[in-house]
Amino acid sequence: MATYPQAIQQLIDHFRALPGVGPKTAERFVFHLLRTPPARVQELTRALTELHRAIGRCTVCGTFAESSPCRTCADPRRDRSLLCVVADPPDILAIERTDAFRGVYHVLDGLLAPIEGIGPAQLRIADLLARVSDGGNPIREIVLAFDPTIEGETTVHYLVRALAGRSLRLTRLARGLPVGGDLEYADPITLSDAMSGRREILQPAIPAATAADAPPF
Amino acid sequence: MATYPQAIQQLIDHFRALPGVGPKTAERFVFHLLRTPPARVQELTRALTELHRAIGRCTVCGTFAESSPCRTCADPRRDRSLLCVVADPPDILAIERTDAFRGVYHVLDGLLAPIEGIGPAQLRIADLLARVSDGGNPIREIVLAFDPTIEGETTVHYLVRALAGRSLRLTRLARGLPVGGDLEYADPITLSDAMSGRREILQPAIPAATAADAPPF
Repeated sequence: MATYPQAIQQLIDHFRALPGVGPKTAERFVFHLLRTPPARVQELTRALTELHRAIGRCTVCGTFAESSPCRTCADPRRDRSLLCVVADPPDILAIERTDAFRGVYHVLDGLLAPIEGIGPAQLRIADLLARVSDGGNPIREIVLAFDPTIEGETTVHYLVRALAGRSLRLTRLARGLPVGGDLEYADPITLSDAMSGRREILQPAIPAATAADAPPF
Repeated sequence: MATYPQAIQQLIDHFRALPGVGPKTAERFVFHLLRTPPARVQELTRALTELHRAIGRCTVCGTFAESSPCRTCADPRRDRSLLCVVADPPDILAIERTDAFRGVYHVLDGLLAPIEGIGPAQLRIADLLARVSDGGNPIREIVLAFDPTIEGETTVHYLVRALAGRSLRLTRLARGLPVGGDLEYADPITLSDAMSGRREILQPAIPAATAADAPPF
């Protein structure tokens, strides 16, 4: 059986360990790198070496950061009584980019998926409960910001039970039509969520007579 | 604007340079590696370092190999008068796995794609012509083994012209229905190729009378 030289096959095997990378993709990566100038590949090698050296876990929120506590946890302007729980570190970046949240975060490191063997012990749930129980740092609201998936729902239900009886507000991200979405093609659950979560439209305080006189367009 | 720590962003940028990898995939790779034990990441780093150190071009056929000439070009049992031209090194492995070819190879390093700026000068076509002109090594047949795509066809047409007037056989891989394919859903070009390239079915030499007496199943 014909095979690749060992140095090629070894790197193919390493790339196959990356998420979503099959044998053909791994092969394409390696042949791409063989055609890349060695200096560029060295830069990639250096960036890889640097990764675990420069980046660690924030001992407060659990995100990957250059320091512990991370920049967000160390920021005195953040509201420590408002805690947003996310599955993974990239979710924090997505929320930060909205500029719509001034609280702090907690990374669960995944979502509950009993079928795949991911239970509460595999997630940073004990750390979350310890953080909530910490008397010196009273939390008034926890926002559960998970993907709208089965795993996300399972995790919400679990945390609602685990956090029951504490005097804090538990909230979750709103569900409804995404911007640019198409009502006609929205799935029934999303549309039903959008209907039950419908919001008041603020109307200008105009006397009724004037409003009726207004042009229709 | 919220951003990732520099060591994370740098590695994301490096992964984005790999073929078919967008920002989200690169991000997934990096966060996967952050959760991988540092020793595993070090092994990947070592495999990357090893790549350009252990692997070079075979000066004869142009494939990536641990030695030059490569194992195939150095093998005395290979028929040097039979030359198979391929676009890329992985194509050689695919053909070797069939055990259907005992000649030698030539890697073009791609296919002609004028729209993308890939002309004859970007490929190892001059090397191929020099190899064919080499008096000490007469080639009796060249098999053009390219993908059945526009680029493959363009390259076949170019090489047919470039190799015109030489006393050698020029062949190409047969086109037709792939094993397990469905005649009903075959595209018209493939089906037309399969029809025009139809092959004689060898029939056992049985006297006509006996054949007529044979049971229908």
